[in-house]
Amino acid sequence: MSTAKQPPAGIATVTTPSDREIRIERVFDAPRERVWRAMTDPELLAQWWGRGYKLDVERLEVERGGHWRFVEHGPDGVHGFEGRFREVVAPERMVQTFEWDGMPGYVAVDTMTLEDLGDGRTRVVTVSLFHTTEERDGMLSSGMEGGLNQSYAALDRLLVSLG
Amino acid sequence: MSTAKQPPAGIATVTTPSDREIRIERVFDAPRERVWRAMTDPELLAQWWGRGYKLDVERLEVERGGHWRFVEHGPDGVHGFEGRFREVVAPERMVQTFEWDGMPGYVAVDTMTLEDLGDGRTRVVTVSLFHTTEERDGMLSSGMEGGLNQSYAALDRLLVSLG
Repeated sequence: MSTAKQPPAGIATVTTPSDREIRIERVFDAPRERVWRAMTDPELLAQWWGRGYKLDVERLEVERGGHWRFVEHGPDGVHGFEGRFREVVAPERMVQTFEWDGMPGYVAVDTMTLEDLGDGRTRVVTVSLFHTTEERDGMLSSGMEGGLNQSYAALDRLLVSLG
Repeated sequence: MSTAKQPPAGIATVTTPSDREIRIERVFDAPRERVWRAMTDPELLAQWWGRGYKLDVERLEVERGGHWRFVEHGPDGVHGFEGRFREVVAPERMVQTFEWDGMPGYVAVDTMTLEDLGDGRTRVVTVSLFHTTEERDGMLSSGMEGGLNQSYAALDRLLVSLG
């Protein structure tokens, strides 16, 4: 009998390494280059980022200083998100800001790393840093985790189709 | 003999109330409504914000969720700055983000309050919150204080001309 130390496949591990951070870890069954492409090609990103709902990629300039802006058309309304790239190192690392139109001026910094697991799989770790603990807790209680797992499930399906 | 507890008139007081904050205090010899106007009217703001140098106000949407973007043409080159408004309460308070193109993705949150001193003068206090102490210290060592005093001196002159 195995013990359930790991979450079931397809579920992200969400932890809080400090009082202003959220850490999200997820393994994808696809090579790193393919995962990176799905995250940086606007036509591919539009197919998974918005939980599988319609997503307008209004701007996606994947380079230092570049801006991004996405608008999701979900069952709970239209939501805009935007930010700017601090650092881009293909295919292994990007650092960018993240802001939701519903709370303008509240900005998290997301540091994402893609690790090649050597067996055709890729581990993606994102650490989000907030200005305050209250902002971090607001994000945690926003339904973020459910939405994230929906988006990553849509990404799983896309990665299979690109295989 | 008086003791020099206060900085000379026309010089901002810069302090660090916490390890991720900078606090700037400055008194202007003009009524609060006039100071607010100089800070929110793009044609007026262009005359002082960039240390008196040419400033392009590309975007200035003074409302919750609105964006701003300015480009300064100074002797040390062309510098872009941008951010977004979190909160606007005319003529007494605004909260906005601040980012310099030279360090994209490094975002401070500036909370500015304008206090009517009741004698035709206005005290302006800005508290900037950074994600890390390193970012705060980087700002402190960037020459910010000198540039700030130049901009505020240009604002002094503009406020006189509006009187």
